[in-house]
Amino acid sequence: MRQNALFQLGTGLGTPGTAHKEEFSIAAPTSARAEARNDHFVVRNGVRCAGAHLIVDLYEADHLDDIDHIEATLRRCVTAAGATLLHLHLHHFEPNGGVSGVAVLAESHISIHSWPEASYAAIDIFMCGNANPDACVPVLREAFAAKRVGVSELLRGQSA
Amino acid sequence: MRQNALFQLGTGLGTPGTAHKEEFSIAAPTSARAEARNDHFVVRNGVRCAGAHLIVDLYEADHLDDIDHIEATLRRCVTAAGATLLHLHLHHFEPNGGVSGVAVLAESHISIHSWPEASYAAIDIFMCGNANPDACVPVLREAFAAKRVGVSELLRGQSA
Repeated sequence: MRQNALFQLGTGLGTPGTAHKEEFSIAAPTSARAEARNDHFVVRNGVRCAGAHLIVDLYEADHLDDIDHIEATLRRCVTAAGATLLHLHLHHFEPNGGVSGVAVLAESHISIHSWPEASYAAIDIFMCGNANPDACVPVLREAFAAKRVGVSELLRGQSA
Repeated sequence: MRQNALFQLGTGLGTPGTAHKEEFSIAAPTSARAEARNDHFVVRNGVRCAGAHLIVDLYEADHLDDIDHIEATLRRCVTAAGATLLHLHLHHFEPNGGVSGVAVLAESHISIHSWPEASYAAIDIFMCGNANPDACVPVLREAFAAKRVGVSELLRGQSA
């Protein structure tokens, strides 16, 4: 579990049963108004929408039970996309070692749920504003050595 | 901000700038092994998959800037679906009043991102195991008085 000057450790949740949890939150965003600006409607491929929502499936993938690796990968995705991390929560399931992780962003969120026993992870990446969700896909492919990757794009809120 | 015997208040994040945040986590799940069992692959409509992922769009909706109402609605969704809440985080954006909220479940997650100025909310509901994500849709429709609701279902991990 890592910390730096930007991140404040969340409530210690202990280790109830065989589960393990971590959570982090930004203690002091530099500008809440900047956050708001990241969340505006965008035009993507000529379509006005609230944002692009990528549905990403990783098959025949590795490291899906490594919570520290998954945390580091979520952080790399946020950086690659040019997004702003507000909150990060990861949960380690036992006995299969699967991980659920969610990064709440100024631009929406990234989630991951892994099934190590099936070498499969379900990810979704929803980003509004100027962030680039596509930049997360090669990061995920490489980090988990996925032999097959499925990506679908949904443009959310087109008729809002 | 509410608490009950099951929930432990997360780290006090203060109110940096004009942003407001809340977070909750289960202090002591009754059984971590039960959590793991909630996350198994399922057969849905004859298809073996990791779980059903509902993409829900609410249009011409109300109460989208009310963080307490959104929190209560997420909790009602979790109950309606028969799911197990592990962690809840909400973030209130200023100046538009939009809310981002994520509920991490033993069965995956629910997220909501709202744009009150467009009367629009983007929601996704991913549930594995025996939980029933469809049960969330009428809860959301009623809670936000949405005049139009779009629902798409993705069956994740079909070839895992």
